[in-house]
Amino acid sequence: MINITLPDASVKSFEKGTTPFQVAQSISEGLARQVISAKFNNETVETTTPLTTDGSLVLFTFKNDEGKQAFWHSTSHVMAQAIQELYPGVKLTIGPSIENGFYYDVDLGDHKISENDFPKIEKRMLEIARGKHDFKMREVSKDEALEFYKNEDNKFKVELIQNLNDGDITFCDHDSFTDLCRGGHIPNTGFIKAVKLMSVAGAYWRGDENNEQLTRIYGISFPKQKELKEYLKLLEEAKKRDHRKLGKELGLFTFSQKVGQGLPLWLPKGAALRERLENFMKKAQEEAGYEAVVSPHIGQKELYVTSGHYAKYGEDSFQPIKTPNEGEEYLLKPMNCPHHCEIYNAESWSYRDLPKRFAEFGTVYRYEQSGELHGLTRVRGFTQDDAHIFCTPDQLDAEFKKVIDLVLYVFGSLGFENFTAQVSLRDPENQEKYIGSEENWQKAENAILNAAKEKGLNYVVETGEAAFYGPKLDFMVKDALGRQWQLGTIQVDYNLPERFELEYKGSDNEMHRPVMIHRAPFGSMERFIAILLEHTAGNFPLWLMPKQAIVLSISEKYENYSKKVLSLLKNNEIRAAVDHRSETMGKKIRDAEMDKIPYMIIIGEKEIEVDKIAVRKHGGEDLGQMTVEEFAQIINTEINRDLKTFEV
Amino acid sequence: MINITLPDASVKSFEKGTTPFQVAQSISEGLARQVISAKFNNETVETTTPLTTDGSLVLFTFKNDEGKQAFWHSTSHVMAQAIQELYPGVKLTIGPSIENGFYYDVDLGDHKISENDFPKIEKRMLEIARGKHDFKMREVSKDEALEFYKNEDNKFKVELIQNLNDGDITFCDHDSFTDLCRGGHIPNTGFIKAVKLMSVAGAYWRGDENNEQLTRIYGISFPKQKELKEYLKLLEEAKKRDHRKLGKELGLFTFSQKVGQGLPLWLPKGAALRERLENFMKKAQEEAGYEAVVSPHIGQKELYVTSGHYAKYGEDSFQPIKTPNEGEEYLLKPMNCPHHCEIYNAESWSYRDLPKRFAEFGTVYRYEQSGELHGLTRVRGFTQDDAHIFCTPDQLDAEFKKVIDLVLYVFGSLGFENFTAQVSLRDPENQEKYIGSEENWQKAENAILNAAKEKGLNYVVETGEAAFYGPKLDFMVKDALGRQWQLGTIQVDYNLPERFELEYKGSDNEMHRPVMIHRAPFGSMERFIAILLEHTAGNFPLWLMPKQAIVLSISEKYENYSKKVLSLLKNNEIRAAVDHRSETMGKKIRDAEMDKIPYMIIIGEKEIEVDKIAVRKHGGEDLGQMTVEEFAQIINTEINRDLKTFEV
Repeated sequence: MINITLPDASVKSFEKGTTPFQVAQSISEGLARQVISAKFNNETVETTTPLTTDGSLVLFTFKNDEGKQAFWHSTSHVMAQAIQELYPGVKLTIGPSIENGFYYDVDLGDHKISENDFPKIEKRMLEIARGKHDFKMREVSKDEALEFYKNEDNKFKVELIQNLNDGDITFCDHDSFTDLCRGGHIPNTGFIKAVKLMSVAGAYWRGDENNEQLTRIYGISFPKQKELKEYLKLLEEAKKRDHRKLGKELGLFTFSQKVGQGLPLWLPKGAALRERLENFMKKAQEEAGYEAVVSPHIGQKELYVTSGHYAKYGEDSFQPIKTPNEGEEYLLKPMNCPHHCEIYNAESWSYRDLPKRFAEFGTVYRYEQSGELHGLTRVRGFTQDDAHIFCTPDQLDAEFKKVIDLVLYVFGSLGFENFTAQVSLRDPENQEKYIGSEENWQKAENAILNAAKEKGLNYVVETGEAAFYGPKLDFMVKDALGRQWQLGTIQVDYNLPERFELEYKGSDNEMHRPVMIHRAPFGSMERFIAILLEHTAGNFPLWLMPKQAIVLSISEKYENYSKKVLSLLKNNEIRAAVDHRSETMGKKIRDAEMDKIPYMIIIGEKEIEVDKIAVRKHGGEDLGQMTVEEFAQIINTEINRDLKTFEV
Repeated sequence: MINITLPDASVKSFEKGTTPFQVAQSISEGLARQVISAKFNNETVETTTPLTTDGSLVLFTFKNDEGKQAFWHSTSHVMAQAIQELYPGVKLTIGPSIENGFYYDVDLGDHKISENDFPKIEKRMLEIARGKHDFKMREVSKDEALEFYKNEDNKFKVELIQNLNDGDITFCDHDSFTDLCRGGHIPNTGFIKAVKLMSVAGAYWRGDENNEQLTRIYGISFPKQKELKEYLKLLEEAKKRDHRKLGKELGLFTFSQKVGQGLPLWLPKGAALRERLENFMKKAQEEAGYEAVVSPHIGQKELYVTSGHYAKYGEDSFQPIKTPNEGEEYLLKPMNCPHHCEIYNAESWSYRDLPKRFAEFGTVYRYEQSGELHGLTRVRGFTQDDAHIFCTPDQLDAEFKKVIDLVLYVFGSLGFENFTAQVSLRDPENQEKYIGSEENWQKAENAILNAAKEKGLNYVVETGEAAFYGPKLDFMVKDALGRQWQLGTIQVDYNLPERFELEYKGSDNEMHRPVMIHRAPFGSMERFIAILLEHTAGNFPLWLMPKQAIVLSISEKYENYSKKVLSLLKNNEIRAAVDHRSETMGKKIRDAEMDKIPYMIIIGEKEIEVDKIAVRKHGGEDLGQMTVEEFAQIINTEINRDLKTFEV
């Protein structure tokens, strides 16, 4: 008999050789029907692998990430089989699961596969799936494995096998198909009820452009047809909400090849949006006792050698800026913290002066490979809503909690209601990569954990995910499409205060090191706006909208009345404009819809007669006639609903 | 007889050989007494030079810059004589006039001169002056001149003479002293009534550190003792108002050796001041139809090759930033205009869309030699209140006038009441240094001149002072100490639109080039704040003061009342704080005076009894007891007095 420990810490005895599937059956038949992969003693096993020792077992369904990976990896075997049957002589290479689905890289030889061929392949895949073929792992010797693929004339698999050790090589069989494979499959092909090939692209063998060019076929699959439908709908919606598309349509930002890749240029509407967000944050920060500072975008190389950033970023980022004389070297700042440390050092402080909270919308520059750039989410220059809090160790707990309050206020006012937190701690087995003393790390980690608990955050602890200079708390936000984004970082740092020899005079009249907290609720303005665009599809909360209403008059003869309305709107602090163009009302409404302006105010004879306005909401809802004051009340109610109050 | 044309265009006949002094006598004896130098046919002459041809004559007194230069240059001869007498064997080199006074570089041999020796030298200078010795120019042959200085064993003068042509060499004699000199003297030493040696410093012969080290003695002189006194008082006041000193005292900004020279770090109070100024400008710009944009602080080298800035700044400024791969090169932006051109190019425009006015508080970086750096007035990184107006040629005149209105609003609201304008046009004799067509230059120059005239500016035209890419209008502001600063530039540019191929569709449906105006009323935030600090001695207009009032309570037991007052002040939109410290009232008042806080609100038993506050102005004036509302009225009146209204 063996003892199996389940995730709820219960221990059950089974006969030696029992499989994970049988363990699931012993719990319930319902579970057994859904279990598609498993981990035993933290290693991936098949659901059919006989368990022969005591150990802990985790069972996964499609709801778990691990289950999805097994599902999609298994489907890639099925796709490979279908392709091999339909295009005889093709050579398979590798076919992993990815974040959404799977791909297989294939050397097609003289064959070609285009999107037109997808239905044919999908059809054959579903036929295979319906066969309910078991996935069966078997160990093979290196010679056997090489022999198999030499017979198939597949030099790619041969190369892969040559790099493996005898004893580590396994094949997976299902139906008539065999593949070199490390394992991690669903029980049988019958679980696959829906497949969709997504795209086809070129890829180099082992990602090296000097190697053979292969064809990469992307696909995804689901246990239910309905789930595929939902996924495709989500994709469609995500495409519509792509911030690069919306940014262009709304005239928010642009890129210029001449200025350089990954360096956004903010157009007037985007700059206005950005400034409104900045002002929102500035106001809250002022309330919370932050003080704005301004620092340059470069610093001497020496500054970053002192901070340790040069060792970290130096070689992979923008290279030093030399000067014509005097042998100086400067760096584009990858971070604002060294500058803020020098600002702290410009004065001498007593414990009574602390905490000092220096805030700056600081633009930093980090070099990214051009292939990694993506709209506003991955750029080479971005503005952080950065601040550094310098406090005594006694103040750390309280300050951390205050920062959490600020972050929650930001999320609340911007409609991010669904979020979790991640506390990143050291990897205790890899301590040499961290800077700072054991004692300080413990203090910092405890401060974060206490604050997260006390503020009632829904958080997970990730061991080994801390930055090299200290532990941190990241917020993970779910957007309207259910996608998760990391937003808002709070980081304790005992390292820079050492490196910059920061000091304050304690109540004991002795000099002490302050603790530093780095924090940025938005993170980067660029990335935050991208996420907000995709979250709201451009329908930002009303308080944030640069233009809240637009006055559309049916004919030019109502121009005076339109102007009067505009001026009344302005008196009511409503940000509005008049569409003066001599276009039809239909065209004006369509354009206002495109611009996502929340309220359209329509002026015609009927409105002038009763000295009112007709209000139409973005999307089409007709609110009817009302006075400007009544409209102002609607606006205020909406703003007060969205924009939370921030009190310290 | 010869005909002499005077500056008022009148022509008078004189006998051949008449001197400028005699011409002055013919006008009035009063003038003759004051005339100290002259220009004949635009060349400097002595007042005793016989005029032998027809020509135009300008006479100068000490009030003119040219008069001052002659006065100070002449005094340097007198100082040289005194030093030669007091320190036998010293070797004279050169002794020019400078902006304020003069210096002489002397090889002192074994002698030493320190500030302690100044009274002795000054005394001897005044004795020589009282001798009323005429300055007499005479031509000498090169041989004669060399002979003279070889006898004196003065290799410096010998070197100077060797570089001159025979026929171009003149000596100036006065009293027993002779000097190699090109001329430009006052009639005699008797005009010099007051002298003051200012400082002594090291200098290299011909400014080359490989040459002999010389001693440079600085001095100044005046026709009246009273003028010297006033000058010294002004110097003293300027020292007190030095923005570097005030910046430190008020905690506005700092520099860090680690961050780098010439890269200011703005401390919280300075950052708040800066932001207030920026918001003031943003509001006015919004009113005037500008749209904010945001661009990165770097751009590809190619961008500046396109703009022509690389050819202009490239080698002497911060060097290109290389990247780890992909062979890209970036530059720190020396100007914002190329980025704004690319923003313009991101959309297509019709004549109906123009003018587009893109504004950005854009931080630019230009390398300056460390020796040229000075506080905030000469830095390596600074933020321009930059904007670029893209308009049709027809709109140029109107736009230029609107910009002038904006500049005048800025000056008015910041207390700069004394200013002139300078229109910088091409040097018609040196046209190859300018980029752009003849026709475009003429259009641009006329637009500026028309606008300057129509707006009633007090302006001068400076031929040859235009930037390489277009003519411009600069404002020259006199500060409270009468010193002149260049502030606010408006520049027409036909060049960048060509280089970036900017276009708009005209009413003729054809594509046309827009015209560009560069403008920056503040110029640079850093330099503007430096000038404002020196102009106001830190007593900024009330509307600009980050802290307008401070509440000082006589004892801690009035804390609640202080808080209530603070909250009332905030309700009245007065920016105030409470000095919570347990210090004496005397100390609190002294600190508030140091911080230049305009109003101190003093709370004691007497004030609480009658529910009022006692108000004391910065500087000491006691305004007595009043309600917070009455105080708010005082504040509002003062703000409305200073902050002009800006209407477009």
